[in-house]
Amino acid sequence: MMQLSESPFPLSHERFSVDYHLAGDEKAAGEKARDICLEQTVEVPDALVPDGMLREQVLGRIEAFAARPEGGFAARISYAVEIAGADLTQLLNVLFGNISIKAGIRADRLDLPETMLRSFRGPRFGRAGLRALLGAPHRPLLCTALKPLGLSAEGLAELAYRFALGGIEIIKDDHGLADQGFAPFQDRVRLCARAVQRANRETGSRSIYVPNVTAPFDEICPRARLAKEQGAGGLLVAPGLTGLDAMRCLADDDALALPIFAHPAFQGTYVLHPSSGMSHQLLFGQLARLAGADATIYPNFGGRFGFTRDECLSIARGTAMAMGPIKAIFPTPGGGMSLDRVPEMLEAYGPDVALLIGGGLMTAGSDLIETCRRLRALIEAPDRLS
Amino acid sequence: MMQLSESPFPLSHERFSVDYHLAGDEKAAGEKARDICLEQTVEVPDALVPDGMLREQVLGRIEAFAARPEGGFAARISYAVEIAGADLTQLLNVLFGNISIKAGIRADRLDLPETMLRSFRGPRFGRAGLRALLGAPHRPLLCTALKPLGLSAEGLAELAYRFALGGIEIIKDDHGLADQGFAPFQDRVRLCARAVQRANRETGSRSIYVPNVTAPFDEICPRARLAKEQGAGGLLVAPGLTGLDAMRCLADDDALALPIFAHPAFQGTYVLHPSSGMSHQLLFGQLARLAGADATIYPNFGGRFGFTRDECLSIARGTAMAMGPIKAIFPTPGGGMSLDRVPEMLEAYGPDVALLIGGGLMTAGSDLIETCRRLRALIEAPDRLS
Repeated sequence: MMQLSESPFPLSHERFSVDYHLAGDEKAAGEKARDICLEQTVEVPDALVPDGMLREQVLGRIEAFAARPEGGFAARISYAVEIAGADLTQLLNVLFGNISIKAGIRADRLDLPETMLRSFRGPRFGRAGLRALLGAPHRPLLCTALKPLGLSAEGLAELAYRFALGGIEIIKDDHGLADQGFAPFQDRVRLCARAVQRANRETGSRSIYVPNVTAPFDEICPRARLAKEQGAGGLLVAPGLTGLDAMRCLADDDALALPIFAHPAFQGTYVLHPSSGMSHQLLFGQLARLAGADATIYPNFGGRFGFTRDECLSIARGTAMAMGPIKAIFPTPGGGMSLDRVPEMLEAYGPDVALLIGGGLMTAGSDLIETCRRLRALIEAPDRLS
Repeated sequence: MMQLSESPFPLSHERFSVDYHLAGDEKAAGEKARDICLEQTVEVPDALVPDGMLREQVLGRIEAFAARPEGGFAARISYAVEIAGADLTQLLNVLFGNISIKAGIRADRLDLPETMLRSFRGPRFGRAGLRALLGAPHRPLLCTALKPLGLSAEGLAELAYRFALGGIEIIKDDHGLADQGFAPFQDRVRLCARAVQRANRETGSRSIYVPNVTAPFDEICPRARLAKEQGAGGLLVAPGLTGLDAMRCLADDDALALPIFAHPAFQGTYVLHPSSGMSHQLLFGQLARLAGADATIYPNFGGRFGFTRDECLSIARGTAMAMGPIKAIFPTPGGGMSLDRVPEMLEAYGPDVALLIGGGLMTAGSDLIETCRRLRALIEAPDRLS
């Protein structure tokens, strides 16, 4: 066995922590917890970890360990803040990098000390900022999607115009719209942004067009800048496809200063199995916020995806739970929603929600503007429903 | 129901296809297959899809559907090439974006037509190029990791020097080494690259130092350039953390022209449950190749992770299966490997493998150089083992 000597770099003794759910009986779960401490930090066998700073501070530390009423165990494991620092990519790595490959470990929540929270800017707008931008201080917000893939840029812009005339305030690209020949990014953004601005001039509203900038690595920032120049009012990003830190970078960009809408594409596998991956609250709530999303889109219960009501409400809690200076953001449930689901959604989420209804607006009647106005009336006067 | 009119953009009629494994009986699996066709393309209810180009070409198409001997069904679904084109991010989105959120769907393999394969450069070196670079035309390659986190840059460089003197040719950062104060990126890369070059001068070998450039979005390229300037011989990236296309971008960069080593951190959840996510072969084989990795690191069977022998061999197949001009790459199994596992690994993978042994070299004895030389002797003369 060889000897290793540590760096003289001094550590602050400040730590962040992650709550993990661990499968198995007490012995198996305890082994998992000790394994996480090694795997996520020094990544060598315990016998190789020298005494001193490495063992006392660099190594993960079990802060709490207890049986869960649902079965299995919960462990709170802390890490030295210097291991991740202000690097979101590395924070994800410490949180769940290698242990993503091990069965029976689910990351449930993240607790960062104030110094780390202050090193992330988080959402630029958050709930209050987005409400101010849209001129909607209290009520639920409305969001829709331009689709289907295969329409021309002109066809999508015509849809955007009608949505905006009908009172939908956040008009986003479907996340499948990239830079296809049907509706190239530049044409689409120019035409859709203009269409929404035209509707705004006619109605006096402040609807925004939110193009999808989920793109090749080296195209994300150029497309976002182009979108800004062309009058886009926000940006849609699927961080499961681009990497979470790409979203953080867009959110932090003062030259853009646009609200960010996070889309869950490619992230679903992380939450599907309760014994592995990450919790809904952590992935779609805490991490989306930390990475600068102002609204987090996810599939609502009872739609065409399988999330339960409790899972959806846990995301909503994650959008507002205490995270120091990191702003609260909008839960944005969608995915197979229709007008008749609105009362139930308002009951579940209260007013701090952005309701995402896409195809449901198109199938509800032949007059899209009229359908949108009916929806708008529903959320402006929810009392009338009872 | 409103009417939609399609774009006049002409499609080529060329299609790519994805094989999905679908859970459930014939009826349920058939519904899943039809749902994938909608969800991954037009994302509106079937009734809204207009006849003509949208229905005939943009919509996904079930090309084959059959029961699997293991249970469940397999469906081959094809998509118009223009939906993804040369955009890897969008290809991932079509392959598995929204349906990642649906249970009982596993993407098993990808088949791209020649025109699409030609639009990706893939691995710059591949097996033959990496062998030429390292001067090892036939035998298995050796790879190790610099760790633990908490050592100084000087301490890591001393390890790198000894590994190289001992005949380990690929000396990579542990994936947890980012830009921590213990061993800042710039210092570490300078010292480790020099240490390996010094060993090469002494031995006449061609070992390479491979720093980890998994980093904040806007730091990935700057760190890669710095690494190149400082004499790094390759780059380590964890595409699960950076986004897959970040790796593609590094691989395609002619100013870098360095071999790329893909690390599986944060990707494990995708393969853990056989009824969801993606197959090992697709994620760590086909997709890693398409995104330009020259070697794909994954946990070997019988180590500290749970992959089976069959799963590992499927990855090895994915590194070399026919993909037009996309080069074959090195399967790089590791994760808790030790010298006494070498014969078994050689038997399983044959000579076209890079064996990753990290902590196992450090625990095997007090003289690291001597331990490395024993390993090197093992892979140079595997016949002696029998």
